[in-house]
Amino acid sequence: MTEAVSRPTLEAVAARAGVSRATVSRVVNGGDGVREPLAERVRRAVAELGYVPNQAARSLVTRRHDAVAVVIAEPETRVFADPFFALQLRGISKELTAHDNQLVLLLTEGRDDHARVARYLAGGHVDGALVFSLHLDDPLPGLIHDAGVPTVFGGRPGWGDDGDAAGHTRSTGEGPGVVYVDCDNRGGARAAVRHLVDLGRTRIAHLTGALDQTSAVDRLDGYRDVMAGVPGASDPRLVVESDFTPGGGERAMRALLDRCPDVDAVFAANDLTALGALRVLRASGRRVPEDVAVIGFDDMLPVAMEADPPLTTVRQDIEEMGRLMARLLLRGLADGRDRSAAMAQPPPAGGVILPTTLIRRASA
Amino acid sequence: MTEAVSRPTLEAVAARAGVSRATVSRVVNGGDGVREPLAERVRRAVAELGYVPNQAARSLVTRRHDAVAVVIAEPETRVFADPFFALQLRGISKELTAHDNQLVLLLTEGRDDHARVARYLAGGHVDGALVFSLHLDDPLPGLIHDAGVPTVFGGRPGWGDDGDAAGHTRSTGEGPGVVYVDCDNRGGARAAVRHLVDLGRTRIAHLTGALDQTSAVDRLDGYRDVMAGVPGASDPRLVVESDFTPGGGERAMRALLDRCPDVDAVFAANDLTALGALRVLRASGRRVPEDVAVIGFDDMLPVAMEADPPLTTVRQDIEEMGRLMARLLLRGLADGRDRSAAMAQPPPAGGVILPTTLIRRASA
Repeated sequence: MTEAVSRPTLEAVAARAGVSRATVSRVVNGGDGVREPLAERVRRAVAELGYVPNQAARSLVTRRHDAVAVVIAEPETRVFADPFFALQLRGISKELTAHDNQLVLLLTEGRDDHARVARYLAGGHVDGALVFSLHLDDPLPGLIHDAGVPTVFGGRPGWGDDGDAAGHTRSTGEGPGVVYVDCDNRGGARAAVRHLVDLGRTRIAHLTGALDQTSAVDRLDGYRDVMAGVPGASDPRLVVESDFTPGGGERAMRALLDRCPDVDAVFAANDLTALGALRVLRASGRRVPEDVAVIGFDDMLPVAMEADPPLTTVRQDIEEMGRLMARLLLRGLADGRDRSAAMAQPPPAGGVILPTTLIRRASA
Repeated sequence: MTEAVSRPTLEAVAARAGVSRATVSRVVNGGDGVREPLAERVRRAVAELGYVPNQAARSLVTRRHDAVAVVIAEPETRVFADPFFALQLRGISKELTAHDNQLVLLLTEGRDDHARVARYLAGGHVDGALVFSLHLDDPLPGLIHDAGVPTVFGGRPGWGDDGDAAGHTRSTGEGPGVVYVDCDNRGGARAAVRHLVDLGRTRIAHLTGALDQTSAVDRLDGYRDVMAGVPGASDPRLVVESDFTPGGGERAMRALLDRCPDVDAVFAANDLTALGALRVLRASGRRVPEDVAVIGFDDMLPVAMEADPPLTTVRQDIEEMGRLMARLLLRGLADGRDRSAAMAQPPPAGGVILPTTLIRRASA
């Protein structure tokens, strides 16, 4: 087996499979036009010999790196502290691996590093990008747009139809070429607040998420939709701004109790915020749900189940959201290839909205 | 200001700074030979115009990407479940960001994906790699070696002086060109077990880490060093193999209580394993430390402090380990550049061993 000496070559694979070099090259580079039993023989020879195609040469032919960048617009410490991101990455990792694409997670210390991230994306190291946890005044979307990398966003981006990174103005984020996956934040929030109204609660508060993120804005809108329909229920003091973290939830809940000690229900923008609120309510001697009912958002497990009491919450399928983002991107890249274009096409534009479900446990 | 129209060019920067294109190019590409007031003027013009160097063209000149890959030889789920990795990444992220290098984390579902990781490393997307949590039978070190990427390892790699990926044979891992950062695993283990002996314990058990990792092997060696010096103390039934996880710690502790119900001390290979052991000891009605003393390894915070009872453990500075790995790699890359070589040199070979300290809390 002379072909096993040092690194196996394309020739060795061809000899082992009994096919031409051109056929091996086509199979290895993911090209079509090779019949299945033959292609299978080549793949077996590749596996047996441990052949590694020359990546640089291969990229020149295919213009593909079989690598997808993931950018989370949060500092590295937050990425590892919030299980939301681990869940989303799990879905992305499974989907990319199933298609033999490398997950390239670009970590940062903060927003100052986003120009460097954009440089890396523009540098031709990945075929596309999955970007999530965007903030409205972040230059990242504009930088990514300039980098010309096919991108799918997690969560509706916050800029307008003209594709500009907008300020704090409300916009649909459904501009041309913008592809995103989101959950029904507004509908989920409505279901939560309606449930609190149905329980007979009259002083229903909302601890918001970070209001420079569309998910937080949409959940606040859902809260307001329901409160506007209940005569005498609306009171601006019942809305306290927070930031999607347990510590932020604690601070917001303390501020709320100061302002409105008669509060009898809390809709928290996510489960981590609800955890913080539960701690402060317990410390203040209030019983949940008897004195104050609490609802979260996400159904983050095991957090929501192991809360004391177990948390009523709005479930979204975070892992599936990640999987779907990856699937949409890979499909767009494959479409580009099928059209025999050397450059990948961006995925078809538009938003995919996943449903949410109210999960009743003990807290409301 | 015509130069601000569309993307600013190198020429525009040169005009604004009143220098030649070559001077701008040298400053932008980090080259030396430009005097400081001049270089500062160029940097100011770059900042004022928001000039982004063409990465591809720049890489052709410098052969640098200002990007460093991090490879953790564990499935993605484990990377996010074990705080050890988050701490190490924190140190790496801080150091790379301080030098404006992009952290590129290559995630996998498991060992089957390591060939793909090696292809990415070989593809010219990063300047170097930081690799940790290696397992002895993993082909990754060999693949990385073939990829020819300057690499610093976290933890002593398990292969011999000939540079081959070895099986389960003990070896120093200090082969030519191998650079690693580790902590004094053996010395730390000795201090822990000696402390248990000093407490008068006579039936001292060890729950090992994953024995295909050198850190686990070295801690077991440290345990054996001390036990061999205490007449009548050694008993092979007191060593139970585990895997560095809380679930593994539970299973190992249960097996140990079945085998040796008279055990009066446990040295666990890390804090997570100790947590699992504490749970099983509590469920069995044994008091810690009165009936069984327990010591962990890592001093993972807040895990070790919040354990019940708070955990006596061997502290290593995990974040500093990450920072040092990044620093050694960047220094090696810079040395390569200073020698005006187009290709970066690998960092100087050898191992850096960080000290460990026994931290006494309530559990032993």
